[in-house]
Amino acid sequence: MTTSHTVAAFDAELAALRRTIDSMAELVERQVGDAIEALAARDSVRAAAIVKEDAAIDRLEAEVEAMVVRMLALRQPMAKDLREIVSALKIASNLERMGDFAGSVAKRAITLAGLPVAPPLSSLSWMGQMVLGMIRDMRRAYAEQDAALATAVRDRDGEVDAAYTSLFREVLTYMMETPQQISGCTHLLFAAKSIERIGDHATNVAENVCFLVKGRLPSEERHKEDLSSSTVVPPKD
Amino acid sequence: MTTSHTVAAFDAELAALRRTIDSMAELVERQVGDAIEALAARDSVRAAAIVKEDAAIDRLEAEVEAMVVRMLALRQPMAKDLREIVSALKIASNLERMGDFAGSVAKRAITLAGLPVAPPLSSLSWMGQMVLGMIRDMRRAYAEQDAALATAVRDRDGEVDAAYTSLFREVLTYMMETPQQISGCTHLLFAAKSIERIGDHATNVAENVCFLVKGRLPSEERHKEDLSSSTVVPPKD
Repeated sequence: MTTSHTVAAFDAELAALRRTIDSMAELVERQVGDAIEALAARDSVRAAAIVKEDAAIDRLEAEVEAMVVRMLALRQPMAKDLREIVSALKIASNLERMGDFAGSVAKRAITLAGLPVAPPLSSLSWMGQMVLGMIRDMRRAYAEQDAALATAVRDRDGEVDAAYTSLFREVLTYMMETPQQISGCTHLLFAAKSIERIGDHATNVAENVCFLVKGRLPSEERHKEDLSSSTVVPPKD
Repeated sequence: MTTSHTVAAFDAELAALRRTIDSMAELVERQVGDAIEALAARDSVRAAAIVKEDAAIDRLEAEVEAMVVRMLALRQPMAKDLREIVSALKIASNLERMGDFAGSVAKRAITLAGLPVAPPLSSLSWMGQMVLGMIRDMRRAYAEQDAALATAVRDRDGEVDAAYTSLFREVLTYMMETPQQISGCTHLLFAAKSIERIGDHATNVAENVCFLVKGRLPSEERHKEDLSSSTVVPPKD
C-alpha cells in the first residue's frame, strides 16, 4: 500500500504544481492585458495597480520553487516526472520575467499619461493583441500538454518581432518630425520593446511545454525577425 | 565501499558542475567586456564576433541543465547539495541572459559603427566598468562561496541604476538638441539599458550565491535606483 500511497501523493503534488503554474500564467495574462490597456488609455491609476500587483507573481514563483525542491527531495522523480518538475522551474522563471515586463510597461504608461504626446499607438495595440493571443495559447498548450499548439505559439513570435521592427521605424520617424515629443516617444519605444520581450518569454514557455511533453525541443530553428537593432531612419536633408 | 564511492562520484560531479558554471561566467565576463569596448571603439568586426560567440554560452547552459537533471535523478541530493544543484540552474539561466544582453549590445554597436553619431559615450563606458566589476566579484563570490562578497555585489546595483538614469537624461537632452542623430541615440539608449540589465542579472546571481551558501536570500531590500522609466526631458520653449 505504501507504493500506491506514495504514487497518489506524488500525483497530488504534481497536480498542485500545475495549478500553481497556471495561476501564475493567469495572473501574467491579466497583468499584460491590463498594461497594454493602461498604455493605450493613458490610465495611470490602473497602471499603478499593475506595478503593485507584480509582487503576487513573484510570490507564486517562490511557491513553485519551494514545491519543486520539496518534490525533488522527497519523491526522487524519474524520466517524464523529473522532466516536468525541472520544466516547471523554467516555466515559472519565464512567467516571472513576463510579469516584470508587464510592470515595466505599466511604469512607462504612468510616465506617458502625464505627457502631451500623441505618437502612433495603433500598431502598438495590434502588437499587444498578438502577444496576448500567444499567452492565451501558451496557457492552453501547458494545461492540455499540447505540443502542436505550443509549436504554433513559438512560430508566431516572428510576427511580433516584425511588428516591433516596423513600430520602431515608425516611432523613430515621428520623433524626427516632432523632436519636442522625444521623451514620450522614447518611453513608448521601451514599452514596445518590453511587449516584444513578453512574446519572447511566451515562446520560451511554449518550447518548455514541447520539451516536457516530447522530451525534446521543437526541431526547427526559431524565426528571428526583430531587425530593430539595425533599423536606422536617416534624417531628411 | 559503495557509499564512499557514491560520495566521491557525487563530489566529482559537483566539482564539474561548478567548473562549467565558472566557464560560463568567464565567457560572459569576456563577452560583456568585449561588447563595451566594441561599442566605445565603434568596432563592428569585433562586435560581430561577440554576436557569433553567444552560442557557446547557450551550449554551456544546456550542459549545466543536463548535469543537473542527471545529478537529481541518480544522486538524489538533499539539503545543501540539493540547494546548490537547484541554484546552479538559476545561476546558469541568469548567465545565459547576460550573454544575450552582451549580444544585444554588440548588435547595437554594429549599427552605431555605421552612423555619423557622436552622442556622449563617457558615462556609458563608466557604467560599463561598474557592471564588469560586479561580474568579476560575482564570479569570485561564487568560486569562493563568499556570501559577504555576494551581498556587496548586490548592493552595487543601485549605483549602476543611478548611472543609467543619468545617462538616459543626458542622451535625451542630446537628442532634442541634435534631432538628426535620433536613430543613433536611440540605439545607444537600448545598449545602455542592456548593460544595466546585465547588472541586474549579476545581482540575481549574487543573490543565488547567498542562498546557496546560507540557505536564505540577503535580508535587506534591494535598492532600486533606475528612475529612467519616469525620466522626462521637457522641450525648451
